[in-house]
Amino acid sequence: MTFEDVTSPFLQAAAGQVADHTPVWFMRQAGRSLPEYRGVRGEGSILDAIKKPDVATEITLQPVRRYGVDAAVLYSDIVVPAHAVGFGIDVAPGTGPVAEQPLRNRKDLERLRPMEFDDVHYVIATVEQLATELPTNVPLLAFAGAPFTVGSYLIEGRPSKDYRNTKALMRTDETLWHDVMDRLAESAITFIDAQLSHGAGAFQLFDSWAGALSRRDYDRYVLPHSRRVFSELASRHPQAPAIHFGIGCDHLLESMNSAGPTVLGLDWRTPIRNARSRMGDDLIVQGNLDPALVLAGREPAIAGALDVLRDNELDNGQQHRGHIFNLGHGVQPDSDPEVLQAVVDVVHETTRQGATTSANNS
Amino acid sequence: MTFEDVTSPFLQAAAGQVADHTPVWFMRQAGRSLPEYRGVRGEGSILDAIKKPDVATEITLQPVRRYGVDAAVLYSDIVVPAHAVGFGIDVAPGTGPVAEQPLRNRKDLERLRPMEFDDVHYVIATVEQLATELPTNVPLLAFAGAPFTVGSYLIEGRPSKDYRNTKALMRTDETLWHDVMDRLAESAITFIDAQLSHGAGAFQLFDSWAGALSRRDYDRYVLPHSRRVFSELASRHPQAPAIHFGIGCDHLLESMNSAGPTVLGLDWRTPIRNARSRMGDDLIVQGNLDPALVLAGREPAIAGALDVLRDNELDNGQQHRGHIFNLGHGVQPDSDPEVLQAVVDVVHETTRQGATTSANNS
Repeated sequence: MTFEDVTSPFLQAAAGQVADHTPVWFMRQAGRSLPEYRGVRGEGSILDAIKKPDVATEITLQPVRRYGVDAAVLYSDIVVPAHAVGFGIDVAPGTGPVAEQPLRNRKDLERLRPMEFDDVHYVIATVEQLATELPTNVPLLAFAGAPFTVGSYLIEGRPSKDYRNTKALMRTDETLWHDVMDRLAESAITFIDAQLSHGAGAFQLFDSWAGALSRRDYDRYVLPHSRRVFSELASRHPQAPAIHFGIGCDHLLESMNSAGPTVLGLDWRTPIRNARSRMGDDLIVQGNLDPALVLAGREPAIAGALDVLRDNELDNGQQHRGHIFNLGHGVQPDSDPEVLQAVVDVVHETTRQGATTSANNS
Repeated sequence: MTFEDVTSPFLQAAAGQVADHTPVWFMRQAGRSLPEYRGVRGEGSILDAIKKPDVATEITLQPVRRYGVDAAVLYSDIVVPAHAVGFGIDVAPGTGPVAEQPLRNRKDLERLRPMEFDDVHYVIATVEQLATELPTNVPLLAFAGAPFTVGSYLIEGRPSKDYRNTKALMRTDETLWHDVMDRLAESAITFIDAQLSHGAGAFQLFDSWAGALSRRDYDRYVLPHSRRVFSELASRHPQAPAIHFGIGCDHLLESMNSAGPTVLGLDWRTPIRNARSRMGDDLIVQGNLDPALVLAGREPAIAGALDVLRDNELDNGQQHRGHIFNLGHGVQPDSDPEVLQAVVDVVHETTRQGATTSANNS
């Protein structure tokens, strides 16, 4: 096996280098959309399944085997750290994260004690197992929820449309707000550090719901804490690419990019070309096929995937460096795996051709 | 009563003129947040209440009496036209619009026959009654759902997070898609025309969920139809200001503005200053206090309202012309009317002072 054979297209693209083909992975690729997942998942909370390293390893590997994607993403959940320190939060099927007692005051914050590696020993065991089982050119992605998004679940106590309690807290007790964000930033850092220290090769910080904020509020109440996550992890794991992603965040992208990720995740609302024109031609992007097009069927999904690649094209028809293909949001549970396979294949085939000639793309 | 006394601050601001004070109204001001509403509303579907002109008139008047807002907005619903032509759609309490049989193919479109004035005779009766009962300086706002947003309810059959069927239809049968949008554009035109012809003084087109689309998709699948609504109504009712509004549409604002409204509605994510820097200093805007701050209480709401006014300030400290104060989304049902009253009062008081000196603001 030559050096080239073990080079990861994901890591190359994340470093802005020419890769053999545009790497592909899907947010939520591991999980409910796969029949083989339902076979091993068992009953009970997802948080219980995550606690079983053999099960979590198998579920993480399934989409890598099936689709030939270029990265594995740990089967995990953004509330794992809060759950692990005993805050009292679970993931209710069909609803999402539900906290027994939401975080509304300083006393509630005491229930969110600082997390240590040992609190998530089962995640570490899964990561270690995956490090030995994954193909060498398929890195494992760690992930964590960003302070705002995790905070919104803890404060609301359940998924919210308007984030009323979260916004009330930031506006009425800014000191407590920043203390909560501090604690959640520390927890995200520790959680990702635990994974990167035991075999994960990159990570994504999900600030899924940050788009509910104006940019002024984001900059004041959220950005310093997300920036701290990227900065601390860059210092501890300088080799690990960092992805920053949120839904409906077009109006926040400059700020989210300034938090310091290596790669900026885009949902389907922001054209790749638009993101580069705003944040620089060397911006490394991830995205951004609308997952609704996967639900719409094979033809719309393939057409949409080709649109994404066209959006990443240089004037000479070659692919711009620094693009990781993904959906613009997580895989919907009722997505057809055959359609996802067709998307992986068309991206690989279309861009492998391009990569041959793109040696000149410097 | 002098001419000035009957001049409407709403209509002045909508025309980009200096007004006595910044006009205020709230999306969904008529309805569930008011105790006096619950007193007259009765049981059953909102669509039944809308059919009773006495009830609908009273509910429309309640917030005008209580708050002293500068515009009345008809107690109505965006699915009224589809319901009126017998498509088979109702508003389920706690859920939203639910269609018995969603619109998925050409045969389903036949069930959505063209609407005529007589189909909504009860709405016309309400409008006529309001025209005699409203203060002369408080115009009645008509409204309708934009083709995309109404279409999404008809096609999905219920409120959706991902608009999967809507996006599938636009991508897999573009001819049928445009036929559906055509029919819905006609219905919005007729519905608003009916109201403007019988006493309403302005209108708002709600494209609440257009933000789910990329700008490319919006421009191709939606914009021509919304543009037709504004263009046709401008031709039939050139004196009536037209407002265009959607949630999470920051990335679409240039396109939505190009559809031809008089006033661009903003949600709380887009600063007024940012909108004017993008679309011209003479842009007339409506918005944009985050309704979550109303839920957060009196102090955060007042502080937020003052932030909005500050965002509309000229360098000399006076208010920019052409601003209609509103929330950045509808009033939440559990909002405290006292907090909304405080918002109306602070906007009126703060800007009435400003208006005195802003005679120089030319």
